[in-house]
Order: sequence, then C-alpha cells, then structure tokens
Amino acid sequence: MKTIVVINGPNMNMLGQREPEKYGSETLEDITKRIALEAEASGLQCVFYQSNGEGDLVTAIQQAASSDGVILNAGAYTHYSIAIRDAIAAIPTPVVEVHMSNVYAREEFRHISVIAPVCIGSIAGFGADSYLLALHALQMLE
Amino acid sequence: MKTIVVINGPNMNMLGQREPEKYGSETLEDITKRIALEAEASGLQCVFYQSNGEGDLVTAIQQAASSDGVILNAGAYTHYSIAIRDAIAAIPTPVVEVHMSNVYAREEFRHISVIAPVCIGSIAGFGADSYLLALHALQMLE
Amino acid sequence: MKTIVVINGPNMNMLGQREPEKYGSETLEDITKRIALEAEASGLQCVFYQSNGEGDLVTAIQQAASSDGVILNAGAYTHYSIAIRDAIAAIPTPVVEVHMSNVYAREEFRHISVIAPVCIGSIAGFGADSYLLALHALQMLE
Amino acid sequence: MKTIVVINGPNMNMLGQREPEKYGSETLEDITKRIALEAEASGLQCVFYQSNGEGDLVTAIQQAASSDGVILNAGAYTHYSIAIRDAIAAIPTPVVEVHMSNVYAREEFRHISVIAPVCIGSIAGFGADSYLLALHALQMLE
Amino acid sequence: MKTIVVINGPNMNMLGQREPEKYGSETLEDITKRIALEAEASGLQCVFYQSNGEGDLVTAIQQAASSDGVILNAGAYTHYSIAIRDAIAAIPTPVVEVHMSNVYAREEFRHISVIAPVCIGSIAGFGADSYLLALHALQMLE
Amino acid sequence: MKTIVVINGPNMNMLGQREPEKYGSETLEDITKRIALEAEASGLQCVFYQSNGEGDLVTAIQQAASSDGVILNAGAYTHYSIAIRDAIAAIPTPVVEVHMSNVYAREEFRHISVIAPVCIGSIAGFGADSYLLALHALQMLE
Amino acid sequence: MKTIVVINGPNMNMLGQREPEKYGSETLEDITKRIALEAEASGLQCVFYQSNGEGDLVTAIQQAASSDGVILNAGAYTHYSIAIRDAIAAIPTPVVEVHMSNVYAREEFRHISVIAPVCIGSIAGFGADSYLLALHALQMLE
Amino acid sequence: MKTIVVINGPNMNMLGQREPEKYGSETLEDITKRIALEAEASGLQCVFYQSNGEGDLVTAIQQAASSDGVILNAGAYTHYSIAIRDAIAAIPTPVVEVHMSNVYAREEFRHISVIAPVCIGSIAGFGADSYLLALHALQMLE
Amino acid sequence: MKTIVVINGPNMNMLGQREPEKYGSETLEDITKRIALEAEASGLQCVFYQSNGEGDLVTAIQQAASSDGVILNAGAYTHYSIAIRDAIAAIPTPVVEVHMSNVYAREEFRHISVIAPVCIGSIAGFGADSYLLALHALQMLE
Amino acid sequence: MKTIVVINGPNMNMLGQREPEKYGSETLEDITKRIALEAEASGLQCVFYQSNGEGDLVTAIQQAASSDGVILNAGAYTHYSIAIRDAIAAIPTPVVEVHMSNVYAREEFRHISVIAPVCIGSIAGFGADSYLLALHALQMLE
Amino acid sequence: MKTIVVINGPNMNMLGQREPEKYGSETLEDITKRIALEAEASGLQCVFYQSNGEGDLVTAIQQAASSDGVILNAGAYTHYSIAIRDAIAAIPTPVVEVHMSNVYAREEFRHISVIAPVCIGSIAGFGADSYLLALHALQMLE
Amino acid sequence: MKTIVVINGPNMNMLGQREPEKYGSETLEDITKRIALEAEASGLQCVFYQSNGEGDLVTAIQQAASSDGVILNAGAYTHYSIAIRDAIAAIPTPVVEVHMSNVYAREEFRHISVIAPVCIGSIAGFGADSYLLALHALQMLE
Repeated sequence: MKTIVVINGPNMNMLGQREPEKYGSETLEDITKRIALEAEASGLQCVFYQSNGEGDLVTAIQQAASSDGVILNAGAYTHYSIAIRDAIAAIPTPVVEVHMSNVYAREEFRHISVIAPVCIGSIAGFGADSYLLALHALQMLE
Repeated sequence: MKTIVVINGPNMNMLGQREPEKYGSETLEDITKRIALEAEASGLQCVFYQSNGEGDLVTAIQQAASSDGVILNAGAYTHYSIAIRDAIAAIPTPVVEVHMSNVYAREEFRHISVIAPVCIGSIAGFGADSYLLALHALQMLE
Repeated sequence: MKTIVVINGPNMNMLGQREPEKYGSETLEDITKRIALEAEASGLQCVFYQSNGEGDLVTAIQQAASSDGVILNAGAYTHYSIAIRDAIAAIPTPVVEVHMSNVYAREEFRHISVIAPVCIGSIAGFGADSYLLALHALQMLE
Repeated sequence: MKTIVVINGPNMNMLGQREPEKYGSETLEDITKRIALEAEASGLQCVFYQSNGEGDLVTAIQQAASSDGVILNAGAYTHYSIAIRDAIAAIPTPVVEVHMSNVYAREEFRHISVIAPVCIGSIAGFGADSYLLALHALQMLE
Repeated sequence: MKTIVVINGPNMNMLGQREPEKYGSETLEDITKRIALEAEASGLQCVFYQSNGEGDLVTAIQQAASSDGVILNAGAYTHYSIAIRDAIAAIPTPVVEVHMSNVYAREEFRHISVIAPVCIGSIAGFGADSYLLALHALQMLE
Repeated sequence: MKTIVVINGPNMNMLGQREPEKYGSETLEDITKRIALEAEASGLQCVFYQSNGEGDLVTAIQQAASSDGVILNAGAYTHYSIAIRDAIAAIPTPVVEVHMSNVYAREEFRHISVIAPVCIGSIAGFGADSYLLALHALQMLE
Repeated sequence: MKTIVVINGPNMNMLGQREPEKYGSETLEDITKRIALEAEASGLQCVFYQSNGEGDLVTAIQQAASSDGVILNAGAYTHYSIAIRDAIAAIPTPVVEVHMSNVYAREEFRHISVIAPVCIGSIAGFGADSYLLALHALQMLE
Repeated sequence: MKTIVVINGPNMNMLGQREPEKYGSETLEDITKRIALEAEASGLQCVFYQSNGEGDLVTAIQQAASSDGVILNAGAYTHYSIAIRDAIAAIPTPVVEVHMSNVYAREEFRHISVIAPVCIGSIAGFGADSYLLALHALQMLE
Repeated sequence: MKTIVVINGPNMNMLGQREPEKYGSETLEDITKRIALEAEASGLQCVFYQSNGEGDLVTAIQQAASSDGVILNAGAYTHYSIAIRDAIAAIPTPVVEVHMSNVYAREEFRHISVIAPVCIGSIAGFGADSYLLALHALQMLE
Repeated sequence: MKTIVVINGPNMNMLGQREPEKYGSETLEDITKRIALEAEASGLQCVFYQSNGEGDLVTAIQQAASSDGVILNAGAYTHYSIAIRDAIAAIPTPVVEVHMSNVYAREEFRHISVIAPVCIGSIAGFGADSYLLALHALQMLE
Repeated sequence: MKTIVVINGPNMNMLGQREPEKYGSETLEDITKRIALEAEASGLQCVFYQSNGEGDLVTAIQQAASSDGVILNAGAYTHYSIAIRDAIAAIPTPVVEVHMSNVYAREEFRHISVIAPVCIGSIAGFGADSYLLALHALQMLE
Repeated sequence: MKTIVVINGPNMNMLGQREPEKYGSETLEDITKRIALEAEASGLQCVFYQSNGEGDLVTAIQQAASSDGVILNAGAYTHYSIAIRDAIAAIPTPVVEVHMSNVYAREEFRHISVIAPVCIGSIAGFGADSYLLALHALQMLE
C-alpha cells in the first residue's frame, strides 16, 4: 500500500477560524478527513503533518524520503524558504506543491515560489480541492 | 450536458514530432483523444481548438463565453499576452491555466504568467495529465 | 472630403456585453454610430475596423497610410506591440492614441504605452467620449 | 454658469519667449485668451492661475474644490509631486491632466505621471489645443 | 517651560472636509486643540505651523532649531523631499516623524520615507493619537 | 482586566550583554519589568514571550488571538517573515509593531518591514520607550 | 537541390515606400530578387514568405522544418515573441537571424532579441546585404 | 560690465551654524563676500539670491535670463527638481552647477543630478572655492 | 584548551545519503570525525551542533559566545537569515563562514550571503576540507 | 590594394588548445591563414593583431584609422570596454564586430555588447566562418 | 616648487584628429602646452602622462604618490575601473577628476563615475579649460 | 616537485605603504617570503607574479596552464574582468580565489566576483593568511 505524506505549513492550522467568508468554514481537520477518505478510496494511505516552523517542515520533508509522494502546502515559506527547497531536492520522492488560493491573484510577493523549480508540479487556486487534485496527480504518475 | 472548451496555443501542434525524448511521443491528437474519453466518462462534452495566432486565441476565448469551463494552455503567450488576459477577464466562464512542463524549472522568463491572475487556478508539470486534472478541477467546482 | 480611420484592437468587440456596470452598456456598434454622426456633422468620413489580431492591426494601420488621420485604440497591444508601433512610424498619417478608461488608474503594466512615442497625441479616461475628442483633435490639426 | 479653473505649473509662464521654433510663439497670455473665448462661447466661465511653486499649486487646487472642473498642466511637477496628487484626490472636482507636448516622445522620466491615477483623464500632444480638448471633455461629462 | 513645534505639511489643512468616513471628521484645528491641551497638562508649550509649500516647511524646521522638539507630519513630502531631510539634519533639535494613517498599508510609493533616517523615531497608524504619542515620546527623552 | 501580549523575536534575549555602549545596559528582563509596572499602573495585564524561532513566534501570535492587543518586536524577522505577517493577519487582535532602534537609519535591508502593512501602526527609534508608547497606543484605541 | 526559406516579419512589406532616405529605395520585392539570383548562382532554391502576423510566422517556421535552412528577419517580434522562439526551437533546421539595420544603435528595447539564443547565428547592420551574408553562412555550414 | 547671478538653494542659509567642524565656520554671507570681491577684481558684478523654495528658485533662474551667467548650488533640489531643470533649459544663459561637498562621496541618492544635463558644466568638492572656480569658468567662456 | 564550535544548518544531516555522486559519500558524522581528529592534533576541542531550524541556530550561535571560535555552515539560511546575521554580530567570538560547494558556481540566489559581512572570513568550494581550512584559519588568528 | 585589419582580443590566442571538443581544434594561426587566403583571393590584404590587453587593443584600433576596414573580435572586452568603444567611434574606418560562438546562447552577461552601437554591423555564431562573412560584408560596402 | 601630475586616459591622444567640429581642433599636445604655461605662471611644475592602458594608469597614479596633486582625466575608464579607484585611494595625494565634455549630457552609462568618491572634487564640461580650473583648484587647497 | 603560481593583481604592490594601520605593515614582498617558506616546508615550489594590467594578468594565467595550481588575488579586477574569468576557464589548472580583506564587509560593488564561478574555491578575510590557507587547500586536492 502506497503512502502519501501531506505536509502543511504556517498558519494552515488557523483554517476555518480565520475570515471564514474568505477562506471557507472548513478547518484543516475537515480537509484532512476529506483527503484521507479520498485516499482510502484509491487504496492509498495518507500521513498528515502541520507545523509553523521552517526547520520542522525541513525535517518532515526529509523524513518523507521513503514515502511514495509528498503533497506540500508550504504556506508563506513558499516564497522565501530555500531551506525547504533544499530539503525537497535532497529526497527522491516526488513532491507536489499545492495552494488553496490563486496566489497569482494576490500580493506581488506571493507570485514567486522558490520551491516550485524542485517540485514535479504545482496546483493552485481550487480551495481544498487542490489537495485532492494533487492526490490524483501522484496516482497518475506511473 | 456541460461543455468544456480546451484551447491550445502556439507550437502545441508540434507535440510528438519535436524532441520526443523530452516532451514524449504523444501528439496533440493523442492527448485530445484521452481528454475526450475522460470527459465522456464524466458526462462532459469537450470542444478542442488550437491556433498559433494570439488574436485567434482571443477570439476563441470570447466564443467560449457560453461554455461551462475553459482549459487553456496558452503556450508562449502565457508570458506576455495581455490581450489573452483581457479576453479571459471579459468572459464569465471559469478558466483553468495548464502547462504540461514544470514552467518554474525552465528559463526565468517562463516563471511569469500574465494570465494566471484572471484564471481560477493553475496546474503545471504533470505532462498530458495536467489537462485531465484540469477537467477534474472544473468538475469539482459547484 | 477627409477620411479618418478608426481602428479598435483586441476585446473591444466585447463592449456592452462585459461587466456593463463597469464599462457601460454601449456596444462598440453604438459607439461607432455616435462617432460616424459626429464626423458627418463635421464634414468628415469615418472608416471603422476592429480585430483581435496584432498582425491584422499592423496591416490595417499600413492601409490607412493614405487617409487623413487615424484614431487608434490598440487595447492590450498598447502595452507591448512594437510591431504596431513600427506600423504607426511607417506611415505619414497622424495617429491619435485613445483609451476609454484611465489606464493610469489601473494595473501597473497598463501605465506603459509602447505606441505613445510615435503617435501625435494621447487621450485617455473619457469613456466613449475619448473617440470624439480624438476626432476634434484631428480636425484642429491644420 | 459653470466655472472651470485652469491651473498652469512651473515654467509655463515662459511660453512664447523660449525656443519659439519649438514651442510656438504663442505666450501663455495668448493661450489664456483663446481658452477664455472658447469657454465663453460654450457658456462657461474660466479662472486662470499660474505658479512656479509646488505648494502654491496645491493650495490653488484645494481652492478649486467648489468649481465645476479643473484643467491642470502641472508641468515638471507632473512627474514627482505626490503633494499635488494628494490635493487632487482631496477635492471632489473632476481634474483633467493636460500637456502641450507629447510627453511620451521626450525623456524617459517624463513618461511617468504621478497625478494621472487621480485625474479623470489625460490629454497630451496637441499643443495649445490640448486645453481646448480638455474644456470639451469637461463639458461632455454629465 | 519647554516648547514643542508641531509642523504639518501639504493637504493636512483639508482634514475633516475630505472623505470624513475615511480620515474622520476631526479638522486640523480640532487635533491642534487636543494636542495643546495634552501638552499643557504636561507642562509643555506647543507652537503649530502648517504649509503646503516645501520651502516653507524647510524654513519652519530651521526656525525650530532653538525649540525642545519637533513633531513633523511632512505629508506627501515625506516620500521625496531631500530638502526637508537636510533641514532636519541641520538642526540639533530631536524631530519625531508622525503619520496619522498606516502608510505601509497604502500605495507602494508611500512606504519610503526619505526623512526617517534623520529623525530620532517614527510613529504611524494611530490617527490623531499619533501626535499625542509623539508628544509622550519627546517627554520621555531625558 | 485587559491583557496585552508582548512578543519579542530573535536576539532580543541578548539585550544588555551585547554592545552595551550602543544598545544600553538594560536587559530584556529590565525592560519587561518596566513595561509590567507601567501596564499595572494603567490597569492592564501584560504577558511576555520571547523566542528566536520564526515558527514559535507564529504560534505565539496565533495564541494571542483572544488577547486585547499585541506589542510585537519581530527583530530580524520583521524584514522577511511572511509567515509572521500571515499570522498577524489571521487574528482579529490589534498588533503594534515596535523597534527600539531607528531601523531607517541602519542598513538598507532594515528599511523594509513585511509585517507593517498588517499591523495597526508602527513605533520605532525610542529605545525601550518604544514599548511604553505602544502600550499607550493600544490604550488609546477604543 | 537545397531549399532555403526566407521569412520576413511585420512591416518588412513597407520597405522602399517608407522613409526611403533612411531605409533605401529598394522594396522587399527588389531584395527578394537579389537573394533569389544569388541563391540560384550557388545552386540553392529560395522560398519567400512575409507576414505581419505573429501566429502566421510561427506556422511558417514550423512548415520550414523540412527545408535546409531558414533566414529569418522577425522585425519587431524579435524583441518579444517567445512564440516564434519556441517555433524555432521546435524544428531541426538551422535558422539565421538577420536585421538590415544595426539594431544595437537604435532604441534600448531593440537591443534584446528573444530569438537569438535558439538561432545558430545572427547578422545585423549590413542593409539588404545581411540576407546575402546569411545565405553564405548557411552554405558554409557543412 | 557683465553680471553673474549666484543662486543658492535650500539650507544653504544654515552654513556656519550647522556642524561647523564638518562644513566649516564660514557663513553664506562670508562666502558671498569672498565671491563679490573676486568678481570685482575681475570686472564682474555679482547678484546673490537664496531661497528654500523650489518655485522661488525656478523664478530666480527665469529672471536671470538676461544676465551673463548663473552659478547655481541647488542643494537638495539638485537630485529631483525637474522644474528647476526646465527653468535652466528655458533660458539662454550659461548655468554652472556647483556643490561645496563632494556629493559623490555621500549618500547614493546624492550621486544623481537631474540638472547637470542642462548645465554647461559642473564643479563639486572644493568647499567655498567651488564658487570661485565657477566664476573663473564663466570668465573663460567667450 | 581552546574550544571551537562547529555549527551546521539545514539539510547538512542529509550528507552522504543524497546524490552521493555529487556531494560525495561522506556523511556529516564522517566529516565530524575528521574535524575532531584534526582539532585534537592541534590541541583544540571541537563541539558539534546541527539543526534544520533557523531559531535553533540563532540560539546555538548565542551560546557559543564564550567559545574561542565558530565554524558555521548555515546552509540555505546563508542567503536570507538576518536573524542568524544578528546573532553572529551579537557575540564577540570570531565566526568563519564555510561552504562545501562553490556557491558562486550554483544558482544566482546562492551568490548572496547575508551573513558574510559579519563573519571574519569565508571559505567555500573545497568540500569537507573547507571545515579543516576554517580550523586552520581560526588557529592562525592570534 | 585595400587593407583590412583583423583584431583579436583576450584569450583568442588559446584557440585550439582549450576545450577543443567545444571550440574546435583550429588554432588562431589556422584561422588566420584561412582568412588571409580568402582575402588574397578577393584582392584584399589582411593585417592581423592579437592582444590580451585592453589598452593595446585601443591603440591597435586607433592605428587602423587609415585602413579600409576592421574586423574585431573583442572577446570578453565586448561586454564592458567603453575604452574600446570610444576608440572605434574615434576612427572613420568601418568596424565589423564578430564572435565565433553564438554569444546570445551563453551566460546573460555575454548578451550585452557595449561596442555594437558604434560598429557598422555584427556577425555571431558561425565559428571561424564569422570572420570570412565579415570579410564579405566589408567587400560589399561601397 | 610644487609638482602636479596630469594624467590622461584612453583615446585622449586622438584629440584634434577626431571629429574636430565636436571636440575642437586642439590636440592633446596643444592643451598640454597651455596647462604647462599656466602652471609656470603660478610657480608650479607639471608632469604629463597619457596611456590607453588601465594598468599603466594605475601605475602612473601610484607613482604620483609623492607629487603635490594629480589632475586625472580617466576617459572611458572613469565609468568602470575600480582598479584606478583603488590606486587613487592608495595614495595620499589629492586627485581632481576632470572631463572636457559635460558627461551628464551624454549617454546614460557616462553619468556614473566609479572614481569620483575617492577624488577630492570633480570638474566637467568646460573643454580644455577644465584642466586649468583643476590647476586652480589644487592651488587653492591649503 | 609541484609548482604553484601565485598571481597578484592591481595595487597589491602598494601593500605596507598604504594605510598600514588598516592593511598592516607587511609588504607584498614580506608576504611573498612567508608563502615561499610555507610552500618549501610542504615540498612545493612557488612562482610569484604581480601586475596592475588586466591583459598581463590574463597572460600570466594562460602561462600557468602547466602548473599544479594557481592562487589568484585579482584585486579590483575581481569585480568586472570577464577577460580574467575567461582565462581561468581556458586552463585546466585549479585556481583558488583569495582576498586579504573580507570583501563582503566593504562596498556593495565588492560583493560581486565575476571570477568565483570558474575558480574551484574562494578564501577571503584572513589577511595574508588567506594565501597560506589557499596553499593548504591546493595541497588537500588530490
């Protein structure tokens, strides 16, 4: 049975509580359940991790080296964490970058992703569905 | 029955012929068939259009105003066609930006998308699967 | 009888249909009629042309070489079409740049006009009236 | 009877004396008379003001708050006076930006107008006629 | 008895009249009274000055050389007046930069203060209270 | 009784030990006591937190969501931590940015604050008094 | 017998008519004849194509995939058409970039060629002779 | 007898009072006397003007149109006053730019002079002697 | 006996496992042993620390304040961690920056070191030998 | 008999010895012979010069003032030697810029030629044939 | 008797021969004589040096360490030779930068002087008189 | 016996004479002796070369092609000499870049090394010891 590690970065733990009219009322837990169900239906096992710390995320990515795929929403670190970029580059596992919002329709500084060049692909703008699409994407890889 | 318009931009008609070891040996026609099948299975109808001309693509997007969704691989125009951006903004239909390659791992000038801010979301890096994921994304809407 | 060629660029054909609360409910046809009437009253003849294609606009400008004046709303091409700039520079006819919206109050990339330096003057921000003012401007030229 | 305030900025008082082969031999007084006549013919009253001082122009714009329209040639201040920009934004009166020369065909630093975003529109390149076109533009409003 | 000079720059005289729902309905006079009262309570004397002119502000700062402190809201000049910067640097009096609005949450060009490096400190974002905090700050200085 | 959370970022724990001739001989503990006293006198309760870790500060800000105000000296993270910016934006509590030194008189890279746009205001340059002024500022709100 | 495709971009059809004192009085037809003669003398066959449209040029380049060489004067598109760049990269045929004028002695924006990196070489500044030199260059390739 | 107008800009009236160990103890009056003496010795008449106001300096330069030469120390305005630049360009009189300090050894923003391109020459770094050298330079003309 | 603290940053714990053909097959442990031996031979004591967390590295550097020297390979944080820079500046201990690879021959963003200006020196490009050279460098210091 | 001076800049003397698989095994001497033969066949005389020194190349260009044409491969100096640019501009002889490699397909800093604007034309990318094409180009002049 | 070393850089040896209508018909020798005469009249001895080579100029400046002043026209090297800058900084002798033309009225790249910050002053725009003014400036020192 | 070539660039011959309190009183000769002794002790032979000329340094590097290693302090040329970069790239010998001062703690323009990408490694900031460390580094290779 294949294992997919879903890693969420800073402030993702605030989902549902913060500006629900903007980000929806689903909490990270709700989304986690939806992903787990979808994965199960596809015969995949999902492991979930969230941290606000850059170093913790680096370690989590390193530890996912033996998994079959990583779905990574690096949050704000997306835009400047070369440490996370290096961690992705250091493992052989395919990593898919996801964002719930369309980052390109937000502030200028969110248009740059320092991790995108070392991920296999990116999915942004579909809300919580971005994670499910990433799951599909990893399944489609041979 | 919902209709999805799949629009391909410049040089996409060269797929399969050009550097097959890099871009795969699938032609645009092959990919088109795969998308059509997948759409059919989901009860969707797909209409396909390809052009090398910026103005033709603008017109094609305008004409997709009454469709239920647009999957757009604008090719090189992604990086500078404000005319295509304006066409997307001028129609109410949700448009998903797709790229077969991971554009962020290529030349610097390919990291900028002038159309991303007016699309609902972006999917890049999964080869021909990027189109299928876009199809899923449009289905998940609503 | 003098002839003025009025050339409209990409997406101008969407006027009236698109975000009417923002751009007004007048269609390009309505505006065309108003300009024609005003021109007639001044003893001028107007010829109208619209295209979404950059190359078509280049050709239209070349063909206006023997007219008495050009009113050009190059739409999105305003910001990057050096080909249109070169076409303007290649004809002896005075060309007036017009924009319906105040482009300087919109996105940063709309503040740059690559065609302005080779036009005789620019008029922006007065809605459909921008065309009428351009007509007056061309009449005032000796 | 509607009142339009015509405000001229630095060095406009040198018109006619300075490089007449380039800027024409009309003085600011001559132009003022032409505008006044044209206004009168249209049932408008014009008030004229010129100053070389940035602060004086700010005050003049503030005092035009109760007029029906402002025609502003801010001269060199166009390119850097945020104070004048703020004054325009602080009054409810519509302000039209005018330039006699085609500023876009001159030095790079003259291509930027910090006041354009808060004016209703801009007219540039038609010599003294730019003022008359601005008068027409204000009449066409409402 | 210590004397504090409160200097206000361009367009501050429009407070209360202009967009009251945004800037509040307090006029500069109202704010002036509040500051004077607070100062009096602290055994300080306040002198107030407002001008729209850059040169006048330079002179006012020079003349505050013998006061015990300056509270300066340079308005739009904050962002480009090196002349005001030099005036601040030329006097031994401590100068506190104040802004009523949070300038960092406004347009990009308002994020740069050319005077900040020569002031002893900056206070921004607390509306009219910014002045009172500046008064406290000057008192806290030995 | 209202609660104010005072959060200090990286290297603030070195105060007093490091270059005392430059930063003063007060330790962070000394400053903490002064703030606590001043708060008590005003009927406020202060909670203090210091960490060198970006993620820890994000978490601390999130946990201050139910407090009545945050005083944040983010230290070096001020200049690049979009994660901290997002944390501030995710809570309804007013956050005041403080700096002991006049950051605008130091290296170029310290002139940019990525957190300022989401704070209600900023106070910089008054040494340890910056914290006390922030306390006053939070009291003045409401 | 080897075939060379000579492709001319926007406004090249205006040669001879436009500013003859600057660009010479030779028309594109005249130049075409000269190239054809020279080619014939060298036992080569030349095919000529001109278009003002970016997409048409993309298609023309794609169709030259089976020729023995391309001489391309992309005109204004040289400076921004990534679509043309991609077309050149998509065919195995050697492409030589030519310009009649010394583009480096003209406006700044003409110093950048987005197509140069994918051409085998560039020749600029020798008037119509640039085409003949390109013909020689293609012959010299083994 | 030839007349030279010596124009001094903002904060030059503070000379001698401000940081005398850095700028010397000579006041502007002292320097004025030295220049007057030197001029007299050379059979020239000098007229002196100082203002902190940008508009006043523009007017002063305009009024020097009939003099035989202008020595201009525009102070801080050197770096951004296009209005002063335009005034210099509007008069036929030769203008020499002077600076007492070596502006190139100071802050980056002082390395740019927007007035230098329209002056006949520049002299910087020789203290009050810069004025005397400018006087010599004007004498050498002709 | 002198103590040298060797601090390694993010992803250095992956050495040997990751792309061994590129980075060598030595693990961080192997390198650590080599350094310890070399140090011992020179009568020095080495203490080793590795962390993926920026804040942990800041703390580690602070705690090295009483050691005789620090050898720091800050990994990816080298390029943006002002927090680490400030920690280095806050301690009196000499810090030597080391990199195993020649960072200047890698991606553009790795050419910038925000910590270099506060280190006493930098050594890059000699693989694990970079650490030994840093040890020699610290010994050579008085 | 016309004389053409062929000037080669820094490191051109290393041709053939250095990375022959990349630059070919022809030495500068071999190329020189080929050019001399070709010139002789065309009734031209060639003079050859090579130096690694910028000043020597300046002098060589000055001394070619009385020749009939210069073929210049300035090597690395192409990208920054304004001194060589000035030397070219100081002589009446036509100078053709040549490069063996396609400089536009190499590092970013090699895309800029400071000498191109003062040469009559440029030829790049054809290996040693670039020199022969330059010879043809000079013959075609007149 | 004091000694002044006059050092001229690249292409200054072409004066008089090159575009005499622009640079005048005086040769460097003529100018040299004028300077020598003027120096003699002032009881100074002048030594003259010219070279096209950057390294030679560095050496000449080093050798002027024991002279009483240097007048340096570094020509094109002014804009990029940090080596010459370092040579000036390495000697205690005062160095005056001179330019015959008004470099600020020429190409953008001539507006930057990398040597100005380490010279005591700069004189530009007065033709050959610039040298004489520099001589006066050196005399006025002390 | 292995041979190491030690090459010093512009102004290094001024060591000891220039600002001894800053750069130390050791002359280049002193340093040379120290390196020679150290080399001898390690069974290496050192050859020394110094020049102020860029071209001479290019030639010296070319001539070191058959040595076993180069230690290069290119001085000011480090920051802009692409010619020296090309010379390093043209030889198979390993080149170590050294700087006596910590160039990253000096002016902004000294932070860029155009030669670093083609050297095997860089050592900066350890005074004359930088050369000795480079010697060790070359020994450790192999």
